[in-house]
This record gives sequence, C-alpha cells and structure tokens, in this order.
Amino acid sequence: MSRPVRFEALVRDLGSQARLGRLDTPHGSLETPAFMPVGTQATIKGLTPDMVRDAGARMVLANTYHLALRPGEEVVEALGGLHRFMGWDGPILTDSGGFQAFSLAGRSKLTEQGVAFRSHIDGRLLELSPESAVAIQQKLGADVAMCLDECPALPAEKGAIAGAVGRTIRWASRCKDAHTRVDQSLFGIVQGGSHEDLRSECAEALVAMDFDGYAVGGVSVGESREDVRKALAVTTPLLPFDRPRYLMGVGRPQDILDAVATGIDLFDCVLPTRNGRNATCLTARGTVKMRNAGHKVDPRPIEEGCDCLACRTFSRGYIRHLFMAKEMLGPILASVHNLAYLHRLMGQIREAIREGRFVPFRAGALEALGP
Amino acid sequence: MSRPVRFEALVRDLGSQARLGRLDTPHGSLETPAFMPVGTQATIKGLTPDMVRDAGARMVLANTYHLALRPGEEVVEALGGLHRFMGWDGPILTDSGGFQAFSLAGRSKLTEQGVAFRSHIDGRLLELSPESAVAIQQKLGADVAMCLDECPALPAEKGAIAGAVGRTIRWASRCKDAHTRVDQSLFGIVQGGSHEDLRSECAEALVAMDFDGYAVGGVSVGESREDVRKALAVTTPLLPFDRPRYLMGVGRPQDILDAVATGIDLFDCVLPTRNGRNATCLTARGTVKMRNAGHKVDPRPIEEGCDCLACRTFSRGYIRHLFMAKEMLGPILASVHNLAYLHRLMGQIREAIREGRFVPFRAGALEALGP
Repeated sequence: MSRPVRFEALVRDLGSQARLGRLDTPHGSLETPAFMPVGTQATIKGLTPDMVRDAGARMVLANTYHLALRPGEEVVEALGGLHRFMGWDGPILTDSGGFQAFSLAGRSKLTEQGVAFRSHIDGRLLELSPESAVAIQQKLGADVAMCLDECPALPAEKGAIAGAVGRTIRWASRCKDAHTRVDQSLFGIVQGGSHEDLRSECAEALVAMDFDGYAVGGVSVGESREDVRKALAVTTPLLPFDRPRYLMGVGRPQDILDAVATGIDLFDCVLPTRNGRNATCLTARGTVKMRNAGHKVDPRPIEEGCDCLACRTFSRGYIRHLFMAKEMLGPILASVHNLAYLHRLMGQIREAIREGRFVPFRAGALEALGP
Repeated sequence: MSRPVRFEALVRDLGSQARLGRLDTPHGSLETPAFMPVGTQATIKGLTPDMVRDAGARMVLANTYHLALRPGEEVVEALGGLHRFMGWDGPILTDSGGFQAFSLAGRSKLTEQGVAFRSHIDGRLLELSPESAVAIQQKLGADVAMCLDECPALPAEKGAIAGAVGRTIRWASRCKDAHTRVDQSLFGIVQGGSHEDLRSECAEALVAMDFDGYAVGGVSVGESREDVRKALAVTTPLLPFDRPRYLMGVGRPQDILDAVATGIDLFDCVLPTRNGRNATCLTARGTVKMRNAGHKVDPRPIEEGCDCLACRTFSRGYIRHLFMAKEMLGPILASVHNLAYLHRLMGQIREAIREGRFVPFRAGALEALGP
C-alpha cells in the first residue's frame, strides 16, 4: 500500500530513544525531530509564508475547527486547497477539530455519533463526527489529516479516560473507513492519560489499523513538565518504530527536549507565536520579557548570535518601544524570533542525535534554559 | 554653503509644470516625484523595512510628536539615531511635531514662544518651540527636518491665517538659527490657506532665508480635491525651481496627479497604510473593499498585473478571509499592496515626465481611477 506520507528513521541516538528521521510528504521532505508552527486560521499570526520559512519552519499546522467555521472548507477547496489558499507550498497537517469543538465551542454535546456544538463565532449548531472531520480535512487538503478523538478534560477519573479511549478507538476505525484521499495521510491519536494500561490498549488497537503515523494526545500546553514526562514515558514506547510519532500541542523547549529523548518526532504548539505576541521571547538562556524597562536603551538584539530578521536588524530597545507603543511590528518580530529560536533548537537536537550525543546536549540545553 | 540634501531637476515635462528630479541625501538618492510612507512611531505599521523597500519606497517619514513622547528622542539617539533605531538605512524625513501638538494633544495653548500641550498618552504638560522642535529632530537624526509652523484649523478667517503666516515666518527664522546639524537639511513650510497674497508673503520670506527645500503646508488628507488644487495653484509657482517641493499630508492618487502637474516633488500620507488596515485597497481602477462578499471565492489577486507580495501570492478570497477573521496578515498584505500601487504610480509618473507625456498620462490615469 502506498503511503502519501512516509517516515524513515535515519539515526538512533546512542544514549536515548531519540531518533533522527526523514518525513517525505506530497509537498516535500523534512528532517525530524521537527516543530510545526500553528496557523490556526490558515495564517501564522502576523507572518508571511516567507517569514515562517526564513525562521526555519518546513511544515505547519492549521486548525480544522476554525477553518470549517470560517471561511468554510468549501471556500478553501474552491480556492485551490489549503496550500494555495495560505501560500504555503510545504507540508501541512490539519488537526481533526475535536479539541476545539470541546474547548472553544459552546454547549458541546458528545454522543457515539460525534460532538454537537455551537460555533464560538455565530452560535450556529454544528456537528463533528469521525466522517465529517475526515470529509472536511479532505477538502482542506493538507498532507496529514488527524483522526477525530475524544480528549477528556483533565484531570479526569480513570473510568472517564477509559471511556474516551474506547470511543477514540471506535472513531479512529470510522475515520479510516471514511478516508479516501490518496495524496493525504491519516494519523491516529493515542489517548489514555497517564494510565499505562489505557495508553497500551489504545496504541495496540490503533496500530492494528495500520495508520501512517501516530500522535500522543491528551497532553498539551499548560500541563506541568512532570505530567508531560509521565504521559510520554508510558506512551511513546508503544508506538511503532517505523512510523512518525507526533506529540500534539507541546512546545516548551524543556518539554521538547524531554519528548525527543523518548522518541517523539513531531511537535506543534501556539507557544512561540502566542508568547511572541505577548512580548515574551524565547532564548537558549530562558525567556526575555520585551516590555521590561531594562531594555529601554539596550542596543543588543533579543538573543546574541541569532540570525533571525528581528535579531539581524533591531535592538531590544526598539522592540520594547514597539510593544509599549502597541505597534503590530512588535508581536511580528517577537514571533519571528521565537520561531527562529525553536527551529534552531530543533536543528541542534537533530545534529546532536546524528552525532550520538543527544543526552549530554539535552543536559546542557536544560541547564542553560534554567527552571 | 554645503547642503546635506540637494535637489536637481533633471527633466521638465512638455505640457505642465511637472518635473523629474533627483534628491541626494546623506542616506542615498531617489528620483522624484516620490511618495514617502508614514512611519508615525518609527515603524510603517505592520511592515518590516524590507517589505517597505520591496513595495517601492525609497524615503520614509516619521513623526516627531509621537517619538518625542514615546520613547523620547534621547532613547532614539542613544540607540544610534532614527535610521538604526527603525532599521531603515535610506533617507528619512521628520515633521516638526506642530501639527500633532495642535490636533492630537489636549488643551493646546499657542503663544509666540511655542505651543504648550498635554501628552495624549499620559497627560504630561509639554512645550514645543521652534528651538525644541529643531533640537528634538536633531537628536532623531533624519536626513530632513521640518520647521515648526502654525497650521490654523481650517476653515479659518483670513485674519487668523494671516496671523499664522506671520508666526510661521518668525518661527522659521528661529528654527534656522537653532539648526546646527551638518548631516541634516531643514525645510521651510509655506502657509497661507488659499490666499495668494498670504502664500506669496510666506513663500518670499522663507525663500529669503534660503532653505534646502520647501513644503506646502495647510493642505492635507480629508480636504476636497478642489481645495487641494486651489492651494497648489497659488503656492507651487512661488517656490524656487532648484529646491525640492514637498506637499505635506497628501496621498490620494488623484491629488498626487494634480500636484505633480504644478511641480510638486515629494508627498507623504497615511492613506495607503490606513486604508490598507481598513481593508480598502488602491488600484489603477479605483478602490477595492476587501471585506466585500463578492471576493469570497475570488481567486484573482487584489490587482491583476501587480507584482507585490500580496498579489504574487494570495487570492482576494484569502485576503477577505484574513479580514473577516481579524488576522493581522490582512492589514499587512493590504498595506503592502497599497504602497506598491502608489509607488508604481509614482514610477509611471516619472516615466511619463521623462518622455514628455505627463499631461496625457495624467488624463488617462484619472479616467481609469474614476471619481
């Protein structure tokens, strides 16, 4: 069977489960571990596609829930599909929309059929089922589509998580049956919280369905580093070695370093762009708050040695001024830098794995990052 | 006497007062007639310097009032001056701050000494005098500084305009005495409303002071095309042929075509960027409202044949989506296009003058633009 998106593990690290890999997609290849910036509404907020690429991104994510609501998947399809629509000719992944249908929409109602909810934009009553989540994603036309899963609000009782695992497995099967687009891969999502038996049950069932890739769900931005580590410790080993492993919604540098050590290949998170819009910059030595009065006449760039557009051209003093004056260029430059920093980290991670020194690299990077 | 900014008229049009010229500044040369995008707070809103240059800009404007209030001229000076501060190594012009001190600030009080006002940001009591307007602009370090003038709110009685002319002349003399920076030129501003005798009195007095360039003040965005034409008809002929002539605050394509015909060389206006932020795009066939439902699945660019970043990459349907979804990239792309359109118009104007066919070019351009 031909796989639209293929993964090959190229190098295994000597001291951890980390691996250097290559992901081939209908829109080009990239090396992993890799980070995908989030273009919720088919735009990485404030940045042109060239800026996103110059900051090191090779693959991006867009949100099915947002695009289905506005402008609608038919509009994206009529305008040539997501790649042409947003001017990004590299690989794209769309999520299933389920997470937002639960968390953003009003009065979500979950049944075996799917999730009914009201649009957060205009209150329309809508339904997302395994079949419609796949149909929408096929119209959007990303290289990778995701199965609709049930992602229980945490913390949750084990019984509730077990129920979500059962439904996630049944929905994954319906997604696979519904998926027909030959230039798009479908990834499964493993749920199960921090329960090894549930994660195992979910992973085994999904692997039996033979997906082109597997995501670790139920772990995302906002959770403690310890929670992320626990969920990964029980989940990543369950995923097949020859398929890409994607940790959804995680983007803290510390979490990425932890997850790569367990063998995760793909990441996405709003963190670098959301933090950028809030004037918080990521550096190898931790975060820098750009509104801090200490930067007022600071001629240094956000991060010494960074070759991003922001650091090549502008001082901390100027970027602080932009934020104080509420100028759009502030969030833009901070987002560009944060993406450049995170993609540089991913490049360093890949080099370290290639050279069999990921464990010491990770220790040094974590120490420099601070708590 | 050495002039930091020198002007040479290269070609005179055959059928009008239009001229093709070259402006040499400490930060490079440009051909005129030219349009200067406005970077109020030392940033052309939402655009990087590369985007501004790619859209065709060669010289930009920054606002003294805004920069003096925030971050303060000392901060700009400490960070290497305006060029380095905002990452623009081409020519820059700063206004005097007077217009904003009258129009934006609270409770302005005008005396012969200057104008006292309260900051629109924090209510601080401040004063702008001819001497301080020059001192601030010297610290900012643009290639061209402007004299502080009195710009009476229109419509005004002739007596009030005559008083403003007298003060503008006295203040210009004080500005000239205060100005010492050898890598910066100081331009005078001619006031006088639509009164030929007052414009003439003002122009004669300023020309006697021998400024490096002359601006036509008291005409700006929002005024009717007829008012702009009237003021220019009586003013431009009074300005010396061998100095650059700058029409402040005017940027409607129709007004630019009218003004060039009278011999104006330089323009600035917030129109292309402000309109862009409001989803109104400029084209050779008039304006296009990007939120219009008719663009929903329109695969065409904003303007056929335009090679700007927005038109090269994106459909009207996508740009409409960005505006409907309140995404920053919408205002950014529309601003880029509007600047590219206006700079393309300036290039066509220069070519038409070079070939002695500005009059028919103007007639055709005005007809295509519509009312």
